[in-house]
Amino acid sequence: MAEFSIIGKRISMVDGPAKVTGGAKYTDDLTLPGMLHGKILRSPHPHARLVRLDTSRAAALPGVIGMITGADVSRPYGILPVGHDETGLAVDKVRSIGEGVAAIDAVSAEIAEEALELIDVEYEVLPAAFDPEQAMRRQTDWIHEDKPYNIEKEYHHHFGDVEAGFREADVVREDRFTAEPVTHAAMEPHGTLASYEPSGKLTVWSSTQTPYYLQLTLARVLDLPTSQIRVIVPFVGGGFGGKDEPLPHEICAAALAGKVGRPVKITCSREEVFYLHRGRPHQIIDLKTGITRAGRIAAVECRVIQGGGAFCSYGVVTILYAGALLAALYDIRNIKYDGYRVLTNKPPCGAMRGHGTVNVRFAFESQLDMLAEAIGTDPVEIRQRNLLTPHSRTVNDLRVTSYGYPECIRQVIEHSRWSKKRGKLPFGEGIGIAGSHYVSGAANSIIRSDMPHSTVLIKVDHDANVTIFTGTAEIGQGCDTMQAQVVAEELGVGLEQMHVVAADSDVTPVDLGSYSSRVTFMAGNAALQAAREVKRQLLSAVSEQLGVASTDLVARAGKIFIRNDPSRAVSFAQAVSAAQEMMGGTLMGTGSYAPSPQARGGKFKGAGVGPGPAYSYSAQVAEVTVDPGTGRVTVDRVIAAHDCGRALNPLTVEGQIEGSVSMGLGQALSEQVLYADGYILNPGLLEYKTPGMLDSPEIVPIIVESVDPEGPFGAKEAGEGSLAAVIPAVANAIYDAVGVRITSLPITPEKVLKALQTKRVGSGR
Amino acid sequence: MAEFSIIGKRISMVDGPAKVTGGAKYTDDLTLPGMLHGKILRSPHPHARLVRLDTSRAAALPGVIGMITGADVSRPYGILPVGHDETGLAVDKVRSIGEGVAAIDAVSAEIAEEALELIDVEYEVLPAAFDPEQAMRRQTDWIHEDKPYNIEKEYHHHFGDVEAGFREADVVREDRFTAEPVTHAAMEPHGTLASYEPSGKLTVWSSTQTPYYLQLTLARVLDLPTSQIRVIVPFVGGGFGGKDEPLPHEICAAALAGKVGRPVKITCSREEVFYLHRGRPHQIIDLKTGITRAGRIAAVECRVIQGGGAFCSYGVVTILYAGALLAALYDIRNIKYDGYRVLTNKPPCGAMRGHGTVNVRFAFESQLDMLAEAIGTDPVEIRQRNLLTPHSRTVNDLRVTSYGYPECIRQVIEHSRWSKKRGKLPFGEGIGIAGSHYVSGAANSIIRSDMPHSTVLIKVDHDANVTIFTGTAEIGQGCDTMQAQVVAEELGVGLEQMHVVAADSDVTPVDLGSYSSRVTFMAGNAALQAAREVKRQLLSAVSEQLGVASTDLVARAGKIFIRNDPSRAVSFAQAVSAAQEMMGGTLMGTGSYAPSPQARGGKFKGAGVGPGPAYSYSAQVAEVTVDPGTGRVTVDRVIAAHDCGRALNPLTVEGQIEGSVSMGLGQALSEQVLYADGYILNPGLLEYKTPGMLDSPEIVPIIVESVDPEGPFGAKEAGEGSLAAVIPAVANAIYDAVGVRITSLPITPEKVLKALQTKRVGSGR
Repeated sequence: MAEFSIIGKRISMVDGPAKVTGGAKYTDDLTLPGMLHGKILRSPHPHARLVRLDTSRAAALPGVIGMITGADVSRPYGILPVGHDETGLAVDKVRSIGEGVAAIDAVSAEIAEEALELIDVEYEVLPAAFDPEQAMRRQTDWIHEDKPYNIEKEYHHHFGDVEAGFREADVVREDRFTAEPVTHAAMEPHGTLASYEPSGKLTVWSSTQTPYYLQLTLARVLDLPTSQIRVIVPFVGGGFGGKDEPLPHEICAAALAGKVGRPVKITCSREEVFYLHRGRPHQIIDLKTGITRAGRIAAVECRVIQGGGAFCSYGVVTILYAGALLAALYDIRNIKYDGYRVLTNKPPCGAMRGHGTVNVRFAFESQLDMLAEAIGTDPVEIRQRNLLTPHSRTVNDLRVTSYGYPECIRQVIEHSRWSKKRGKLPFGEGIGIAGSHYVSGAANSIIRSDMPHSTVLIKVDHDANVTIFTGTAEIGQGCDTMQAQVVAEELGVGLEQMHVVAADSDVTPVDLGSYSSRVTFMAGNAALQAAREVKRQLLSAVSEQLGVASTDLVARAGKIFIRNDPSRAVSFAQAVSAAQEMMGGTLMGTGSYAPSPQARGGKFKGAGVGPGPAYSYSAQVAEVTVDPGTGRVTVDRVIAAHDCGRALNPLTVEGQIEGSVSMGLGQALSEQVLYADGYILNPGLLEYKTPGMLDSPEIVPIIVESVDPEGPFGAKEAGEGSLAAVIPAVANAIYDAVGVRITSLPITPEKVLKALQTKRVGSGR
Repeated sequence: MAEFSIIGKRISMVDGPAKVTGGAKYTDDLTLPGMLHGKILRSPHPHARLVRLDTSRAAALPGVIGMITGADVSRPYGILPVGHDETGLAVDKVRSIGEGVAAIDAVSAEIAEEALELIDVEYEVLPAAFDPEQAMRRQTDWIHEDKPYNIEKEYHHHFGDVEAGFREADVVREDRFTAEPVTHAAMEPHGTLASYEPSGKLTVWSSTQTPYYLQLTLARVLDLPTSQIRVIVPFVGGGFGGKDEPLPHEICAAALAGKVGRPVKITCSREEVFYLHRGRPHQIIDLKTGITRAGRIAAVECRVIQGGGAFCSYGVVTILYAGALLAALYDIRNIKYDGYRVLTNKPPCGAMRGHGTVNVRFAFESQLDMLAEAIGTDPVEIRQRNLLTPHSRTVNDLRVTSYGYPECIRQVIEHSRWSKKRGKLPFGEGIGIAGSHYVSGAANSIIRSDMPHSTVLIKVDHDANVTIFTGTAEIGQGCDTMQAQVVAEELGVGLEQMHVVAADSDVTPVDLGSYSSRVTFMAGNAALQAAREVKRQLLSAVSEQLGVASTDLVARAGKIFIRNDPSRAVSFAQAVSAAQEMMGGTLMGTGSYAPSPQARGGKFKGAGVGPGPAYSYSAQVAEVTVDPGTGRVTVDRVIAAHDCGRALNPLTVEGQIEGSVSMGLGQALSEQVLYADGYILNPGLLEYKTPGMLDSPEIVPIIVESVDPEGPFGAKEAGEGSLAAVIPAVANAIYDAVGVRITSLPITPEKVLKALQTKRVGSGR
């Protein structure tokens, strides 16, 4: 008999049929009787004082019902105590183009839109800072008065002894890498519907990854107890980190609804979504690495500056991760890290898929190839010489349990026939390798330290159907399906009997949200614990009935039977009946998960909120063709091996790998948010082009199962870790193809062409 | 320090503000996008075969979308296995006027109504039976072919030895009592909204007292698993038993919605509500009672015939209760009972407030007064001479735990100054006393034997607010408030931190429903158990923190403190934090209640589904004025003492007493459903006049607290038991006033006048 019945099977998502048939209702599909449409007036200036705001002409427009300004939503909020720097609308000044200054609701979206034009705002324009290095040098006109030199947060960490390390090194390189900002471009624009009951209770439907953070933030901003706020997450059309924090339009919808006593819906336009942003920041990475002749990494010194935009958002975490995770892919004993999160007058950056690690990984894996070349070593070999050991601690005290990275490397070099290709392909064709990794969730809650992580409740009804109550937000990653699988497997019944009720704060227990790749590990573990509690009760009732010990019973294939005498069995439904009778009520069970103290890392060693209970690993090989005449890079194939612990559902794991690679390729080659004086030049899906199906190379996903000792059935992260590797793999392949090293993302044809010209000039060709 | 902080306080209902401000949304207030309006074509014949049904003209009417007939909903359903005799629409024949034969949905209610007129139905009229005694004699044309002589159910019970009892008796009386049918007349008419999701999941919002019975019935009728059916109870404007079983319009709304793929709402008109009925049946009670000179009841023989209408409904229980509860008010050792539930061609009767006991109690308490007079004893004294003993068993094995009846009698005679008035008032003024009692819920589920009774789930969120998940249906009786009180008291926090989520089958654990006065006892106990489980976790965490045993801790006034050192305390919020940390998740707890095997009674002694875990008691004194010229009876004052175990909320208990008395007075003096050949002559609130505020006498509610050993904090039933006593108390007072004994309900002026005339003729005056 196979080890598992449902775990490890390729299972279509339980929410799939509703999505592909068009029956799924997203936030903007919802309407309520008497509902109004809200619109937000946005600043045209990147930095300006609000001198006067006159809404009288707008208020007089027939069909306009209500209006709020900064004074109505002036309580600051945001991620982490240090980041309480946003308000629902600007109060005294605006800090980026697109920041809201007033919000209106009207009987139609068109009238609300028209009314915005009738609001008269007088601004006193202030000097703006767009470049982070310039912003750091500015003596006056700081974006937030309490953040001198526009520095949101800086970290200075030193683990081991880098000076000693560099002395031991035989080769040392120092390079600067840069990356332009990119954004999530989720299919569904952000939207929120808010409605008050006569009792004063507020219900908010929102396209969010973090309903419980939204609940807590609304409670603070609106001064309501959390019990008076119900947050419900309808179907969500993608998040990628762009919806993983409370956002101003959510505050505005709730405040407008409260003011006018009618439901209010705000759906952001695509342009507004670009200005909401929360994407990956513009980054400058100065990286110095020393290696020995034997190919061992002796020391790393890394300085990162991130231009984070006008507000903190997750920036303090992004700049922390950039350093803290340096030591968790390779065994590096001497690390010095200086990170600066800098405020600029652009829309706020936040957490985007793989946040903190992606651009540093681009730098590190690129430079590793340069160093390998310097000592005449194969790129694969230099990586293999610096592996960590499973069940060890990194220099900064991160606990690495399972470690499938070596196997990932082995798989991609085998599948790609690496040794037959590297350095052996004709000019213009190349192959490159790189690795990456990610956390399986962060150790601590981001906005309130004593919030629990994940609890799952299971209710078995008297017809033996199982309802799973979970706070997790399904954003397309498959967490509803995952939890149904975990519970079905543990109870030994079919998936068709599972029914998931998710992300409705009135009825589901807390889950911190769908971010940092935490859901499978944390909610999956909570679901498993809850299923075990239900099973305990079932086995106890059956044990009495069959006269054997609970430990001699097995739950499988819809039955509970005696291990050594499977013919003596009761059906699951009979067992439910017996357990109900024993309990005198509905059969229920709860389970919880929080990372163990051991997994939380040493706080004073740069771990902070960051480290997770397990790390996933990825190795990727990219094969490219470079047209030396145009500089255009075509990626022909990506082989991506990902260590996800155990693939609970290989179908969705492969989907996550493919999606991550695709998103990584966008950042590698084409995507960037183009700014001119704080304006976004390409705020639309036509101009900001993410790779589509036709742009995609063949992607070969390979699942490596390291079976993590703490993950549910051994599972860990799969949704983000694969994104970072593909970017340096492409950069390294370009170098292999045409001998130029591009250190700036995205790797546009212009940059390649220019590098080729420079090289030709340099070599005299 | 008082024993309780919240229990026993006069607390306004938590759902009150929404109701009195008009903000509460009842089923008919709900709308969904694309919603259609359903209407039902109803039979004009009391008994007829369906020969032909042609819907083509109706289907052609613009705006008509869908249509169903009996063939679409032909699976029988109903209360109890024996009562599976109803279908959503008539299949082969109709059995009463008002039974549905087809249902239509259209874009407006007006079009649906118009379309009904275009349905052509050909009937073959069958002989109809309206009177139960006639129906029992009928040799042919039985209403249900499988129920010979139209007898739905008969019981023949004999406890003790009535023949020996009557031999011991010194005085024996035999009288016939009759009662006309009455109905509930809840303010809110019945209504249902049904909607299917694309996944095939059905959600039903319905004005029902029994959402879980509705869920199970829809599953059977529509052949869906219960997990695919979500039943939600919006605000309900009264039930009184008229909404305590699945009803045809609920089936039709769901079937129509399934057929057309759009939401369908059916709201019954007031006339349709009268034809849905489920009220108290027409009853004929032949009662024979023997007493000794000492005033002890020696034997009782009781024969009850109930004309139950066209379907079973709760009839098998009503006719059971009529006998089974005879022995639970007074100590009677010899009882013979013959009960006949008879089918007639009238709308089906069901369970109406106090069902089974009201009319038998009218008979018994009236006859007891006659017997007291025969032996020259005061009515109070004869009652006091026949009391039960607490913690005893009745002759038919019902377990009486707490027994506050003696105290109820004591209180009402004291408050009324009985001894100064009885027999001493001027002609035309009178005073009467009577008692009554009721179950605190039935021992078993009514429609599926293995359904659990009540489970309550408590979730404490990270801001220390408490959500109580319960399946109970708030129908105005105050059960949301009651459960909030129970949990708040046990956890030692304020009511304002409680939040009740009720009666939504997807999210709440099972509760059988709001009927048979079961909710306070059963769900109250489940809530208490759940609170204890949460408290256990809280105390365990605080115990660790303060370094004392859990048993030394007290939870009160928002704190958990050391019993002998109250200054050492943590706040409830801190305790929640600590417990969360200890658990690693959301703090939750469940509790369940089912009557103990001891409380379920001897099945073969006539207990069946009937007996409850506790019985409540009521004694009432009515003071009346009778106008001998018109026969008009004015009730001047009712003093009603009710033993509710412990009054968890005296305000709502008094409300229940007042409401019961008011409803009882309606049945006593004026209410009756008037029939002519199966047609209802008064199907409107103007014609079927329930007593309004202006008709109400002074009602003095007196709470007697016997503190039941098994009730939550000692509580038991309060919602039904007070109804029955007021009717015989009024009858007895009329006798005291003018010396005539009316044995037929309602006691109309015509009946009084006629009796006065007969008496005058008899006395030669």
